[in-house]
Amino acid sequence: MIGTRPAGQHTVRQHNAALVLGAIADGPGTSRAGLAAATGLTKATVSSVVDRLIAADLVAEGEPERRVGPGRRGTVVSLSPTGPHGLGIEIGVDYLAYCLVDLTGTVRAEEVRYADNRTPRVFQRVSAFLHKARKRADSLGVPVGGVGIAVPGLVESGLVRLAPNLGWRDVDLADRLGETFTVANEANFAALAELWHGSALPDFVHVSGEIGIGAGIVLDRALFEGVRGAGGEIGHLPVAPDGPPCSCGANGCLERMAGQEEILRQAGAGTVDDLISALESQDDAAIGAVTAAAGHLGVGLSTVVNLMDVPAVVLGGIYARLEPWLREPLLAELERRVPSTAWSPVRVIRSALGTGAAVRGAAGSVIRGILADPEHHLTTHWPSDQDARGR
Amino acid sequence: MIGTRPAGQHTVRQHNAALVLGAIADGPGTSRAGLAAATGLTKATVSSVVDRLIAADLVAEGEPERRVGPGRRGTVVSLSPTGPHGLGIEIGVDYLAYCLVDLTGTVRAEEVRYADNRTPRVFQRVSAFLHKARKRADSLGVPVGGVGIAVPGLVESGLVRLAPNLGWRDVDLADRLGETFTVANEANFAALAELWHGSALPDFVHVSGEIGIGAGIVLDRALFEGVRGAGGEIGHLPVAPDGPPCSCGANGCLERMAGQEEILRQAGAGTVDDLISALESQDDAAIGAVTAAAGHLGVGLSTVVNLMDVPAVVLGGIYARLEPWLREPLLAELERRVPSTAWSPVRVIRSALGTGAAVRGAAGSVIRGILADPEHHLTTHWPSDQDARGR
Repeated sequence: MIGTRPAGQHTVRQHNAALVLGAIADGPGTSRAGLAAATGLTKATVSSVVDRLIAADLVAEGEPERRVGPGRRGTVVSLSPTGPHGLGIEIGVDYLAYCLVDLTGTVRAEEVRYADNRTPRVFQRVSAFLHKARKRADSLGVPVGGVGIAVPGLVESGLVRLAPNLGWRDVDLADRLGETFTVANEANFAALAELWHGSALPDFVHVSGEIGIGAGIVLDRALFEGVRGAGGEIGHLPVAPDGPPCSCGANGCLERMAGQEEILRQAGAGTVDDLISALESQDDAAIGAVTAAAGHLGVGLSTVVNLMDVPAVVLGGIYARLEPWLREPLLAELERRVPSTAWSPVRVIRSALGTGAAVRGAAGSVIRGILADPEHHLTTHWPSDQDARGR
Repeated sequence: MIGTRPAGQHTVRQHNAALVLGAIADGPGTSRAGLAAATGLTKATVSSVVDRLIAADLVAEGEPERRVGPGRRGTVVSLSPTGPHGLGIEIGVDYLAYCLVDLTGTVRAEEVRYADNRTPRVFQRVSAFLHKARKRADSLGVPVGGVGIAVPGLVESGLVRLAPNLGWRDVDLADRLGETFTVANEANFAALAELWHGSALPDFVHVSGEIGIGAGIVLDRALFEGVRGAGGEIGHLPVAPDGPPCSCGANGCLERMAGQEEILRQAGAGTVDDLISALESQDDAAIGAVTAAAGHLGVGLSTVVNLMDVPAVVLGGIYARLEPWLREPLLAELERRVPSTAWSPVRVIRSALGTGAAVRGAAGSVIRGILADPEHHLTTHWPSDQDARGR
């Protein structure tokens, strides 16, 4: 979209705005002079950009700068706590979640509501939930700068091509809900949240264990979505081809063998909380169920590591809570099946965000979008302010 | 290695030499004036670089330029047919191959010798074969600019960490053979050859079917070797976990189920030539063996496509010859197991180079190295020519 605009003054303004806002995000509490030094722009240009960012409430002016040495103290500027917020919505198979984050990525509000979403009423329900989240933002007195929606399915150009666990095919959420969103696969949003707020590793595969199983692959600090955007699909890796039938028509797929429903079934547990209690009291059935899942997960993930030689596996979703019991049998299976572990070990790490990662990533992606192209936000939200735009 | 040199005049010379040689390679038969226009360098700089490239026989001067319009006709320059050649050696499980290519990538000599290399005598044999290849270059009157060696194993920084089908672990070929080489995985060299001389696709996975099975992944016209260089390992994907035991200790690995030895065994054929004859006479056992292999290959490759959403599979090695019989059952299995094929079809393509791809890639990588950094070649081969270097 940005690429289709004519180059020239607008492009320069766009670039400068992103540069200055990025420097403010990197070093909160910096003066205009400090920003000029950090960006290489003139103080006049920095001041002009900062004034426009302040007018749009992307940036707030704070106390006088604290530093030693001669010269006048400038006032410092930071990302505005009352500026546009990112709203993330996750449509899980058995829950809805929202998360509201400010420009620094700090969570200001969140909620999870459990309900089986395998029903045609899901769109009404999402619409009501979205309304509720917006009301929460209103009550906090903060504007919503955009909405990201995480779905457990394959998304192509905003269209949910396939979400088997919801029974969706070619669902256009913008059309269904009457507004536009950033829609993406929940595993990809979760991997981004892990990248932004988690272990700070540059290369990893984040496995989201839920009713379905998805993977988000991060290479060199960027999401790898596959050549055409539908990468990271590991839920239907055939880990036990002669195993029980999967909803997809094949047999013994990874999510059939190691997904939440199979683990709970084998453990005889009703909920994940029940399962954790049983594991903590060393219940044989519960430990057996999680150990079996770890073995299947190891078969599936050995494939990912053998193909991409990725040095770390981050356990997300319910797997984050099950990590103490999953870790050892999973590592053993990986070491057995990945020859390169003999000289290049693979780490298994617990996601700090767990089941909250996808919705956090959905909210954060809105903020990252604004920080990467503030000019677009300014011109969208302040379109009549011709004088300020002309500067 | 190049990165550790001090920046400055040498870096500029290095850059200019690569720029001019690249323009000559792209448009063979160009005058110095044409090169100046193509590179943006001054005619004086181009002339100086061209003189040095001619002195090192990387470039040869040809006939006067053919063009219409006013002005003096320049003589055209092209990559020198007598310049440094790339020598590729492939150490297969049951053969050795060499391939000698000139600077344009044209094959000048090649040979394949069948022999079981699963013996400690393999190093002597490779040494003798290398000597023979060098004598062939001598008899053609061309110098060898470097040697690339393709091995069926995992290579890390030139060290063959593991080549299970040869029984190698931590083998240093430079140490064993007393000279330095570019050593890499055969599947990666094969994928590069396919990229340079094959279907011209920007994104594909090249599957080398031999006794072992390897994959070379090309993304955006570059080899993707995984985060740490050991990617593309598909030989031991578990396609039939309850299947017969594989040499690696696991059961039903892809190469155990769909490798050359299993196909020949099931078909009751002694050699690949016998197998092809049987297929051509519609022998049931032969067709059954190849169809079964296609199914297993489909299970393994569905994983690659689901993970990386790569739009094309190139059948290499013996699979190139078997393509007429593999193609349909392989596509059917991919379509069954890759949900995104419903809107993003996957192509199955026959490699034009077949079993010759890896050795061709090994030879070509030497040439690509010289073209990418001719200055390194010049200073290595003309180290005492201080005057020419100073220009």
